[in-house]
Amino acid sequence: MRLIFVGFGTVGQGLAELLIEKKDLLSSMYGLEPVVVGISDEMKGSVLDPEGIDLLKALDLVKAEKLLCDMDVGKYDGSALDMIRDADADVMLEATYTNIKTGEPATSHIKAALEKKVHVVTTNKGPLALHYHELAQKAEAKGVQFLFEGTVMSGTPLINLLRETLAGSTIKEIKGILNGTTNYILTRMEEGLSYGDALKKAQELGYAEAVPDADVLGWDALAKVTILAKVVYGAKVNPFDYPCQGITKITATAIEEAKGRGKRFKLIGKVWSEKGIAKAAVAPEEVDISHPLASVMGATNAVTITTDTLGNVTIVGPGAGRKETGYSMLIDLIKIASAKQI
Amino acid sequence: MRLIFVGFGTVGQGLAELLIEKKDLLSSMYGLEPVVVGISDEMKGSVLDPEGIDLLKALDLVKAEKLLCDMDVGKYDGSALDMIRDADADVMLEATYTNIKTGEPATSHIKAALEKKVHVVTTNKGPLALHYHELAQKAEAKGVQFLFEGTVMSGTPLINLLRETLAGSTIKEIKGILNGTTNYILTRMEEGLSYGDALKKAQELGYAEAVPDADVLGWDALAKVTILAKVVYGAKVNPFDYPCQGITKITATAIEEAKGRGKRFKLIGKVWSEKGIAKAAVAPEEVDISHPLASVMGATNAVTITTDTLGNVTIVGPGAGRKETGYSMLIDLIKIASAKQI
Repeated sequence: MRLIFVGFGTVGQGLAELLIEKKDLLSSMYGLEPVVVGISDEMKGSVLDPEGIDLLKALDLVKAEKLLCDMDVGKYDGSALDMIRDADADVMLEATYTNIKTGEPATSHIKAALEKKVHVVTTNKGPLALHYHELAQKAEAKGVQFLFEGTVMSGTPLINLLRETLAGSTIKEIKGILNGTTNYILTRMEEGLSYGDALKKAQELGYAEAVPDADVLGWDALAKVTILAKVVYGAKVNPFDYPCQGITKITATAIEEAKGRGKRFKLIGKVWSEKGIAKAAVAPEEVDISHPLASVMGATNAVTITTDTLGNVTIVGPGAGRKETGYSMLIDLIKIASAKQI
Repeated sequence: MRLIFVGFGTVGQGLAELLIEKKDLLSSMYGLEPVVVGISDEMKGSVLDPEGIDLLKALDLVKAEKLLCDMDVGKYDGSALDMIRDADADVMLEATYTNIKTGEPATSHIKAALEKKVHVVTTNKGPLALHYHELAQKAEAKGVQFLFEGTVMSGTPLINLLRETLAGSTIKEIKGILNGTTNYILTRMEEGLSYGDALKKAQELGYAEAVPDADVLGWDALAKVTILAKVVYGAKVNPFDYPCQGITKITATAIEEAKGRGKRFKLIGKVWSEKGIAKAAVAPEEVDISHPLASVMGATNAVTITTDTLGNVTIVGPGAGRKETGYSMLIDLIKIASAKQI
């Protein structure tokens, strides 16, 4: 299976490490023999080699903060779109940074790959939240797969659970903690830190960015519930069509008072169907301390799925991370390999 | 897809109800067009009709505590094994009662069906805990599927998660609450009931049987960890090879004292790999109140899977129930239908 990486940040590198670490297992168990023929990254430079790139070397260069074009062979000057056009690949791995307002440049990358009948695996929320239906239709028309397990809960297999494992069930509601950064901040605030100090701590740990808006204002969770609304209910909406409230207005006092009532604040993303119409919302909720979601602390994510067949099923797992999100792409690659030997 | 039910108790009836309720969905989404050609039940009588049995009528008879042989057509006098031989079926649904010591009569039913190249779906723990490898090998040799999602956590898709959804991961440990009855009793004891009163309450609600040994001595959880040890790690063992301790020695005082230390008793089933050897055990553990398993109350089940790719992933859901366990068989039927149109 011939792969190109578009975006070679932590997620792409996480996958590359797994491909090296699990080489023998992937080959023997799933017939997956990956050959990386191209890596394109705006910051780190690009390399294209039909003979296959030495991934270990590429990772070493990147870790040493050198450029990929310092590889001995395959130096490539073109853009990501040029590489999608030039490379002879079976799968494009799209892991550039998410832009939730435009979905670019990822959406253009994905369209170009699908157009060329190249399977697409992505962890990028922008194209999904904004253009899911268009992209899924294009993939179907072209007879290739368009997979995105990593867009919600990183490698924790929520998308798989909803689309395949719970086959035959009607999904009544999906509700949970979809953003680890805000959950970490709320956890630390309950331990006594102020909002400012908890945010600072989250930034130090790399959970929150310097400009933390996407997390603390709820936009990241909003993108995820929008993806779920589209994928599960076929909703034709944009992220900002749904009500969204972050955690910036929650005070230490409010948290303390909730605690006294046996409650705990969580930033809850919710998607449900009301008379056939998909609804969604993001807002802080006071969750009863005995509710499964209440015990989910720190940077962990958790989602409760309400079905007609099983009642509630809850899945708890990582919502971010280098290896964890890299792994989401590996799940999708295994799926493509299982469907068709490439 | 032509089906026979062997065993038509609550689980079989639960599936029958789902097949009626979800007829259109199953046909349109999964191309699954089930025709039940036989039902064999030791207590309720048997019916065999190649033209297809009216499931609604069969359910009505059973609910009215009448015999299946009161159906207008298809009265059948043979045994379950006779029916497996006589029926022209694609899939046998095995849902007779579990006997964890002998695995019978289910194991004989399954062998007979596989021998005849009939796919098998079962919720029966006995054959799995005792003869998994032999049965799986026979299924493979005959080119048919042998599926058993319902044997652990009923329809909560733990088996699927372990075997497919977490593809490419190394499973380091599987640990959890696998028996709802004992979890319910422990929950009620924490609320102040004595062991005897809590057990009585569980019996009244139908969670515990008149002779509650299989639950309270840990045997049911033991059968489940044995199944996981065999399926995930290929262990070649019998259930009673592993250490097993139930909840009968836990006193109200011990529960109260644990509470004071921020702990909660849970009956924990555990499977892990130690230097390539599968280990397993069932015993009560004092779980920290902040651990995800601690918040799992009542008859709910929960399992934490420790992987090399995602760290811990926890799934929480029902572990028993008419509809819930019936649904586990529907998941398996959809899988068979998706693999091959019958």
